[in-house]
Parts: sequence; C-alpha cells; structure tokens
Amino acid sequence: MSTSTLNQIRTASPLIHCITNYVTVNDVANVLLAIGARPIMADDPEEVEEITALCAGLCLNIGTLNARTIPSMLTAGKHARALGHPVVLDPVGAGASRLRIETALRILDEVHPTVVRGNISEIRTLAVGSGTTQGVDANAADAVTEETLAATADFLRGFAARVEAIIAVTGAIDLVTDGVTTYVIRNGRAEMGRVTGTGCQLSALLAAALAVEPLGLLASVAETVALMGVAGEIAWAQMGERDGNAAYRTRIIDAVYRMTGEELDARMNITKI
Amino acid sequence: MSTSTLNQIRTASPLIHCITNYVTVNDVANVLLAIGARPIMADDPEEVEEITALCAGLCLNIGTLNARTIPSMLTAGKHARALGHPVVLDPVGAGASRLRIETALRILDEVHPTVVRGNISEIRTLAVGSGTTQGVDANAADAVTEETLAATADFLRGFAARVEAIIAVTGAIDLVTDGVTTYVIRNGRAEMGRVTGTGCQLSALLAAALAVEPLGLLASVAETVALMGVAGEIAWAQMGERDGNAAYRTRIIDAVYRMTGEELDARMNITKI
Amino acid sequence: MSTSTLNQIRTASPLIHCITNYVTVNDVANVLLAIGARPIMADDPEEVEEITALCAGLCLNIGTLNARTIPSMLTAGKHARALGHPVVLDPVGAGASRLRIETALRILDEVHPTVVRGNISEIRTLAVGSGTTQGVDANAADAVTEETLAATADFLRGFAARVEAIIAVTGAIDLVTDGVTTYVIRNGRAEMGRVTGTGCQLSALLAAALAVEPLGLLASVAETVALMGVAGEIAWAQMGERDGNAAYRTRIIDAVYRMTGEELDARMNITKI
Repeated sequence: MSTSTLNQIRTASPLIHCITNYVTVNDVANVLLAIGARPIMADDPEEVEEITALCAGLCLNIGTLNARTIPSMLTAGKHARALGHPVVLDPVGAGASRLRIETALRILDEVHPTVVRGNISEIRTLAVGSGTTQGVDANAADAVTEETLAATADFLRGFAARVEAIIAVTGAIDLVTDGVTTYVIRNGRAEMGRVTGTGCQLSALLAAALAVEPLGLLASVAETVALMGVAGEIAWAQMGERDGNAAYRTRIIDAVYRMTGEELDARMNITKI
Repeated sequence: MSTSTLNQIRTASPLIHCITNYVTVNDVANVLLAIGARPIMADDPEEVEEITALCAGLCLNIGTLNARTIPSMLTAGKHARALGHPVVLDPVGAGASRLRIETALRILDEVHPTVVRGNISEIRTLAVGSGTTQGVDANAADAVTEETLAATADFLRGFAARVEAIIAVTGAIDLVTDGVTTYVIRNGRAEMGRVTGTGCQLSALLAAALAVEPLGLLASVAETVALMGVAGEIAWAQMGERDGNAAYRTRIIDAVYRMTGEELDARMNITKI
Repeated sequence: MSTSTLNQIRTASPLIHCITNYVTVNDVANVLLAIGARPIMADDPEEVEEITALCAGLCLNIGTLNARTIPSMLTAGKHARALGHPVVLDPVGAGASRLRIETALRILDEVHPTVVRGNISEIRTLAVGSGTTQGVDANAADAVTEETLAATADFLRGFAARVEAIIAVTGAIDLVTDGVTTYVIRNGRAEMGRVTGTGCQLSALLAAALAVEPLGLLASVAETVALMGVAGEIAWAQMGERDGNAAYRTRIIDAVYRMTGEELDARMNITKI
C-alpha cells in the first residue's frame, strides 16, 4: 500500500458535498481544505441534487439530523449514486434513537452507500437493526481489542457482504472490509476521542479519497483511515504541557495540511487479517 | 467548598444532552469533553425524548431558537424533569425579541429548570417579564459591581424563590442563589466576554455538574461557575503578545482539560453574601 | 485613506445582526468580537425584524440557506433598509444552484443591499443571472489578475451602477466600486483560501464598518477589505513550520484583535483604477 490517495487528492482537488451535523461542520470543511479537497455544505431539499451533481463525492452524516435534512440526504444520496459518485454514510449515534436507526437503515437500503464509517457500536446497531449505542461514543463492551479482533472482523465481513458496502470501523484498532478482504489499521491515539468530530472529519476525507480513486476503493479507504490516525499521532507529538483537546483539535487538522507522503509511509500501520 | 464536582464529573463521565445554538455548539461539545463528560446534540422533536432519557442531564440554550427547536426544548425539558434529570436553561438574548422572552418564560413555567444561568440583563428580563437586553451581552446599566452587589443579591434571591430554581448570574462578579443561600464568585477575566460562547460553555458544564451531584446542588453550581472563571484566568496567563480572542478560546477549553483539583482549590474565590 | 474605520468600530462597538451559514458562524462571531463589534445571530422569521431593529447593521450570507431562513433574510433585509441600516449580502456559492441564484437575485432586488461581497465567480453569476460557479470558490477562468484587472473593473462598475450597490470582489486582487470610483486592494495571502470562511468573516466586518461610517461608505469598505488582507499577512508571519490552515484560522482572527491603526496604515495597499 502506498500514499497514492493523499497525492491524488492534492492533485485533483475534488469538490465534496457534505450534508453533515452543525456541531463539527467547520472542522469538516477545514480538514477537507487541509488535505487539498474543496468542501461545499448544502442541505436544503430544493438544491441538493444540483449541488451533488457538481461534486465528485458526497458525505452523509446524521449527527444532527432533522425532518428537513433527512429527505435531503436521501435525495442527494440517490442522485449521487445514479451519477456514479461515491457516497459515505456516517451513522452518528445510530443506536441513540429510533429516528437515527431508521434513517441510517433507510440510507443504507435506498442509497447503497459506497462506505459506511462509524464506531463499533454504531455499526453493530445497523447490523442488528436495533440500538445498543450510549450517545455518540462506542460502548466499552463493544470495544475492538486484540482479543476480539478476529471475531469482530468476521462479523464485519458478513455485514459488508450483506449490504454490499465497504465498512470502516474506527476505535482503538480500526477495521476496513469489503466482505472479502479485511485491513487492520493500528494508528491514532486514544486522546482523539476527546476532540469532538474526528470521526466526522474522517468520513469526509473518505469521500474525497473515493472521489479520486475509482479503482482500488478498499485500499484507498484503508490508507485514509491510517492517514487520520497518523495525523493524530503527529499532532499529539506537538502538544505542550498546557495544551488540551482544543489545541489538539487544531493540531490534528494542521497535521493533515502538512503531512507528506514520506511521513505517512513511515508511520502507517496497515495489515491484513 | 471543595473540588469534588470536578473530580466526580471525571469519574462518572455523564452523558449530557444539549439543545443549543449553532454558533457555539462546537465549543460546548469540546468543553464537555474537556471536563470529562460526554456531549450529545440532538434537536429534532422526533428524537429528543429518547435522547434525553439516555442522558444524565439536559442543557437548553435559546441562542438560535426556531420554530422547530422550541417544541423540542419543551418536550425534552419536560421529559428530563419527569425522569428526575437536572435541566439548565440558558436564556441567551432573552430581552432581544418577544420570541426569546416568551420561549424562556414558557420553559421556566412548563419545564421548571434546575438552574437558570445568564447575564444580569437576561435574568432581569425573565424576572420582570419584558425586555431590557441589547443583543446577547448585558447592558452596562445592569452591571453587577461591588456597589450594586447586595441589592442584586436580594433581587436574585427573590426571583430564585419565586421560580424555585437556582439562579446563576455571570459577569464581572458572579452570583449563585437558591433563594436562601447566595454565593459570590470572584473569578474570571473581562476578556472572556470577547470570546463568543463562554457563557454557553458554562451552562453545559453546569448540566454535567448537576448530573453527578444530586446532593449539594447549590454548592456544585457555585464551584462550576468558579471553575469556568479559573479556566479563564489560567488561559489568560498563557497568552502570547500576538494572541487574541481566537487563541484565548482554545486556551480556555484547554485549561478546563488540564485543570487539577489543586489549581482549582488554590484559585477559586467563593464567598457567601 | 486612513484607519478611521477600525478606530470607529472599536469606539462605537456596533451590534451586528447576522443571518449566516452554520459552517463559519463561530468565526464570524469571533471576528466581530475581535474588531470590537458585537454579534447577534438570529434567523427565525418570528424574531428577525425585532432583532435587526436593535442592531446597527445586517449581514446576509446564503452559505447554508434553506426554506426557513430565506424568508428571514428577505424580511430582515427589508426592515433593516427601511430603518436606514446598512445591509451586506454575501452570495456564497451563488452559481452552484438555482435556489442560490434566485435567492441572491431576490435579495438584490427586494432588499437593495448596501454592499455585495463575493468572489468574482459569484459576482459574475449575479450580474448575468445564471451560474458559472463551481462550488463556493471562484473558477480559475474568472480569476482577477493584473492582465484582466482593467476589464474586470469596467464590468464591476457597470454592475454596481445598475444595482446601485457597492460591489466588493475579493481574490488574489480585490476590487471595490460604487460604479464611479474603483479601488484596487493588494493585500492578503493565497493561503487564506485554505481556511473556510475568511470571506464570510469579511462580509460581517463590512457590516460593522458600514454601521459606524455613514459617510464615506466606499472608502470604509475598501479599508475593511484591506484590513482583512493585512490580518492574513500578519497571521501568516506568525506561522510555525507544523502550523496549517487550522492554526492560520486562529491567527487571522487574533490578528484582527491585535491590529493597531499604525500596522494597518503601514501595510494597506489601496489604489484607484
């Protein structure tokens, strides 16, 4: 695996349409700019088809979904797929309410996203069709550890094959599978969980990666998951003793902006399972 | 008074439901993560009852209220109280429009929040039922000074007793009262007013504090008000000569993240009046 | 031209009503606080007339327009003009959808904004009434260069005269015209385009500038455009080797906060064409 995805994003500068939550939207825009892509946020049903047609990829994030934006997500998602554009679904807090599960399952069923990225609890919720999530973070009981890795990979392969999408689960250990091949990524830091929106940022970066890499989708996803983790590692190394999660937030985006292919190559830890 | 609230939040890591404005929502999420709590933002009427049931506290902030989120606030607030969860009301800009006064008064009347936190102009507006606020900042004429302190404390005690809520007024001098006991907090810096959302952040931290401290509510509120001020003091001491309000924004959240019980004990200035 | 606008904003501290997108709204609020103005964000149709009546200027930004906020923009805009308040229109992504063009043209027609600020593609879209915009950034083909400067200035003068508004186009070279007099501003850095929302921030600062400078509107606009560019220059000079667009975002707002009249005088590069 190489750093081709990063370089291709910087060369092609794909325009990415995001229908995303208002909590982390600014970071999502800035991380897309950091990696060399261009963001556009638009969520009104009246314009999402036109907007997504201009773009090279779409990211749907249900973090602050509402009655107005749910139809926008479905409309934009279906139109993007009809145009052959990649679509990423981020099922934020999927298990926390009926509205979230139902919306995520509808997007899965009607849009057929290219990639679904979430924490393990969100993905389990989608797979079983009912909720186990406590808020927007993964439950400790679901955590992917070295002990549960093989069983989790099996479970995710089954889910990926069934929904015909690439599944990316991020946490202490990350897993990416298309139902056949499964990558394990060991990058990142636990402190990233203390910054709101690092998952949302990764989902948007995945849309940019898929937009430039029509071949080798799975490898591009794995590389981008590793890139986000490496950004978290580089950023942490810059932290001063009084710096906290707000400085870390800034440094993670800055690490994406400054990352070289050599740094990424040297640090990314991707294996198959 | 001790630093028990800070330590208990870090131990219990309560999940806090925020229906809050989109201006400062990212900072609200990050400051909750900084103190060791976990945020979830959800504002659609279809899901707020389920979301708040998962949580240990609720923060209602009317900063960018609208026709869709006002019913959400009332529904979530009533459900949270029925479950015995603490509710904080932040009546941002209460006097700036009829819609804001009426909404804040309805929440006060129908939800019976545990704590109402605002600047003195917002609280005066609620107490008299009509507006004196100029925008979202307190009017100079209302300012709490050493000269007006005793009279303001009397006024707030009366209001707290009438609405059966803890009233927390923040400004140059902060006051916290339940109608019987009144604390005066002399922490913080004037420059915090040049960062948007430090009040919103405090309101969310209060929900976290109340969630872990079912006994001694008033003392927990006072301690958390002091904590936010101390964070502002510590953060200011880190400022470089070219740093402005944006760097200060980051440093305040970082100060919450790094704060030790010893620092808080050494700096917090809480007295009774 | 002098730094009178900066000093007058700091003295008068005008309250500015923003109906703006949720992507960059926090930065818009903080940059207004940085320059010494006071922001209030309010977008519900039920309250926008009252809110704007309290304020000294209004900024309308269509970046994440929707069915609820479009009527709010028109109502607030018309009420502000009826009260003699300045109104700034920022037609973000005007050419990216029919909804955006139509809304921007309606605001132009029904509100008669004092200033329209956008990139060259957005302004061309408004002038010709149909879209050429790719997303929210200017098309390379439209770019204002030394070679195209004279022709672009002529085009903008014609548009400004026709719509009876000051037109401010920002990019590598900035142009400000009222249809008669045209200023060229050569400040700023290309890297500002890698930070989401520097244009949105400038639009809000323009509303603050217009609020304090009822005479000499055109000069105030030119000076404020230069100020934003100078902030970008000062901020870039502070960048460390690992700093990226997120640190730059913070430093730009900080540069506005710390800017002295002397720094602005020494650096601003405004000429007539």
